[in-house]
Amino acid sequence: MSDAIADTLAGQADAVRARLEALIRLPSVSTDPAYEPGMQATRAYLLDWFREMGLEDVQQLDGGGHPALYGSWSGAPGKPTLLIYGHYDVQPPDPLDEWISPPFEPTEREGCLFGRGASDDKGSSVIAIAAVAAYLQQSGSCPVNVKLFLEGEEEVGSPSLPTIVAKYGVLLRADAMLSADGGRASPTIPTINVGARGNTGFEVTLTTAAKDLHSGKYGGAVRNALHEMARLVASLHDVAGRIAVAGYLDEVVPPDSQARRDTAVFPVDEEAFCAEVGAAPLGEPGYTLRERLTLRPAIDVNGMWGGYTGVGAKTVIPREARAKLTMRLVAGQDPERARQLVQAHLRAQCPPGVRLEFRTQGGGSPASSLPLEHPLVRAGSAVLERLLGQRPIPVRLAATVPITALFKRLLGIETLMFAFGLPDEDVHAPNEFFRLSSIPLGLRAWVMLLDELGRVDPAAFHVKDVAQ
Amino acid sequence: MSDAIADTLAGQADAVRARLEALIRLPSVSTDPAYEPGMQATRAYLLDWFREMGLEDVQQLDGGGHPALYGSWSGAPGKPTLLIYGHYDVQPPDPLDEWISPPFEPTEREGCLFGRGASDDKGSSVIAIAAVAAYLQQSGSCPVNVKLFLEGEEEVGSPSLPTIVAKYGVLLRADAMLSADGGRASPTIPTINVGARGNTGFEVTLTTAAKDLHSGKYGGAVRNALHEMARLVASLHDVAGRIAVAGYLDEVVPPDSQARRDTAVFPVDEEAFCAEVGAAPLGEPGYTLRERLTLRPAIDVNGMWGGYTGVGAKTVIPREARAKLTMRLVAGQDPERARQLVQAHLRAQCPPGVRLEFRTQGGGSPASSLPLEHPLVRAGSAVLERLLGQRPIPVRLAATVPITALFKRLLGIETLMFAFGLPDEDVHAPNEFFRLSSIPLGLRAWVMLLDELGRVDPAAFHVKDVAQ
Repeated sequence: MSDAIADTLAGQADAVRARLEALIRLPSVSTDPAYEPGMQATRAYLLDWFREMGLEDVQQLDGGGHPALYGSWSGAPGKPTLLIYGHYDVQPPDPLDEWISPPFEPTEREGCLFGRGASDDKGSSVIAIAAVAAYLQQSGSCPVNVKLFLEGEEEVGSPSLPTIVAKYGVLLRADAMLSADGGRASPTIPTINVGARGNTGFEVTLTTAAKDLHSGKYGGAVRNALHEMARLVASLHDVAGRIAVAGYLDEVVPPDSQARRDTAVFPVDEEAFCAEVGAAPLGEPGYTLRERLTLRPAIDVNGMWGGYTGVGAKTVIPREARAKLTMRLVAGQDPERARQLVQAHLRAQCPPGVRLEFRTQGGGSPASSLPLEHPLVRAGSAVLERLLGQRPIPVRLAATVPITALFKRLLGIETLMFAFGLPDEDVHAPNEFFRLSSIPLGLRAWVMLLDELGRVDPAAFHVKDVAQ
Repeated sequence: MSDAIADTLAGQADAVRARLEALIRLPSVSTDPAYEPGMQATRAYLLDWFREMGLEDVQQLDGGGHPALYGSWSGAPGKPTLLIYGHYDVQPPDPLDEWISPPFEPTEREGCLFGRGASDDKGSSVIAIAAVAAYLQQSGSCPVNVKLFLEGEEEVGSPSLPTIVAKYGVLLRADAMLSADGGRASPTIPTINVGARGNTGFEVTLTTAAKDLHSGKYGGAVRNALHEMARLVASLHDVAGRIAVAGYLDEVVPPDSQARRDTAVFPVDEEAFCAEVGAAPLGEPGYTLRERLTLRPAIDVNGMWGGYTGVGAKTVIPREARAKLTMRLVAGQDPERARQLVQAHLRAQCPPGVRLEFRTQGGGSPASSLPLEHPLVRAGSAVLERLLGQRPIPVRLAATVPITALFKRLLGIETLMFAFGLPDEDVHAPNEFFRLSSIPLGLRAWVMLLDELGRVDPAAFHVKDVAQ
């Protein structure tokens, strides 16, 4: 049955691609209020699709920010109920002048579809929706009960998601979750995701004076906000790249030998990894690159600015400097505590007369981890092995899928990330793309996965928490 | 004679103020091409005034950038010829949202006229022009021959000034120069300027990768351009505020005991100086605040930026960071050599795989110094003593007047800075203002100074170079 569905659906890859292109054209940048019309148009498009494919209870779930989108099918009593997660928001497109084709105009080049959100996460979300739609359209039913849930604030740290999940807890009740966010680790080696780093962050404003001063009147006599900010940012890491925030690494649970063995199985050419993006390597000594990316924490300043940044020169001593920081968290780290440690470190480094102000947007998420014996991992592994001829390697994401920790905490369910983006697809950067070949592969895998999960006893998903 | 002129002119302070207001309304920001219409309108206004007051040879002097303005009166053969310098360009008004009244709308509050350029340098330039105009209007002649010269690129480091002075050397020939740029050191203590710091600067672009990267894919594995820039900027000074650029202080001529004694005469309440602008003090140990500001060099980062600076969060590892730096120079420092030392220091601090690119706009100027026995200083001191009842204290400027060094080098003449701005007038910052009381005082002083200089033998201005 699922094979027939999958075969038919694979033949419809063009229609699915058209859906993806339509969605890329709608600029759904959640972080910038200027894109509100694009957010609205994207929601309207997806809700129409949900209704058209026959979902019930189609609605927006409002949590005070950008609403989530919801639709369900519950025609398989006794079968597991799967919540299917994706997100319809995307990162800002800037710097705009580095895009080869316009960010919101889907453009094919060399078997890839370019456009903001193509890989993160419109490509994989469309695949998941299309798999459910194919079941309903071709057989009138689905092997499992499904609840589609598309978030609109993933790219800004999901600030309203806790409210939405708490408010609509009954509607969202499920046995497990499948996430169309995350992505594959390699285009050639089959992998299955069993964890992700957490994240949190804040913005810091540093002030040294009541006003901008002229360097020809004050130069050599007063503190300069940019000098002070530079000193603070430089103090976050030692020269080798190790995090130097006091007490920060003490809270991190060192990876166990099984996790390091799993990590070692996945081959990485460290030099090629950096060379591919022209990057200069730097990272915590004593760990391989892949361990640094998945089992160790990171702190990055994502933006820093102050003073005169226009054309020409201006001999000003700026009164204010700002920086945006985010942290990637691993086992043992609590997001709030991690923020507090970094902020305390910055305060401790800050000389008298220099003022710091912190602003946090969204609380962040801890790291997540899924036991290898969980039925989600077993089903996902079985599907990928059948499709790709090789047992997938358990891997962890360097990125964050905040929903995993959140849904576990609020709804008590585990999440399998089952997505088809790839690491080189420039998500969060100019010229983001999605491989067109991932569409038929992803469609087939999702159809098989739903079929496989339909054979699992719903109770089996609710194992005791054995996660690391 | 000069007393009668001065009395009449003092009664015309309102008309002079109207001139100043008209000029503030014309936004002459030289650094930003968007203000070109404001630059043109300012030039048109001033050239009209020059013609109206009876100057000859009224013209624009073109050096490839914003032209300078020129007009002369040569009806006093045998008397000294004085070049009178001012500048018609102003600093950019940003940050715009910190202005209480609009920057280009002159607004009176508490005896002060607010507006960009009010103090730097439209106020003092208008005073100098009006003094000459008053002589010509009321007596049909002037005690000295005058050549008015208003520059349009002072705020961007005078890039075309060397070309203009070289090209129009014959037109500009004079016995000495009076500069309406600079300003008084105190509203209550009479001072006479005998020197100024030099300056130079550059912009640095730092690159760590070929593109912006996602911290959820690369965080912990690669260098971040903002971290690297922070480390470089932090390395410019030690914790105490001393310049830490290798070899930099070795080139600085330590101030002699006479200069330190002169500096000590001018009283400075260090605490109040900083508290007035809410600034946190910092500076080279072993020197008083006023010594640090006038006899010691300074390096300031005027702008620094990179990564995501918009609304909300973006988990990007930026590939590029930029900074604008300027340096205040003192005796012994060559601008080009100073830049080279800072750039060599940054290169030496820069780890492998991180690329630096430098861009210099204008070469900068060395520090300048005027001997106390020079007739310009004697005349200026005599006028101020007569007007204010106290012998003025010789002081040096913390700021830079690039023209002083340039005119000495190219035309062999010394410059007396004779301007009426005050240190608290927020030049280069929001809410710049000029004290209205400085207008009648300045007018009277300029009229008396021209009279005083008319009694000097022209040859006496061309003393051998005895400057420090």
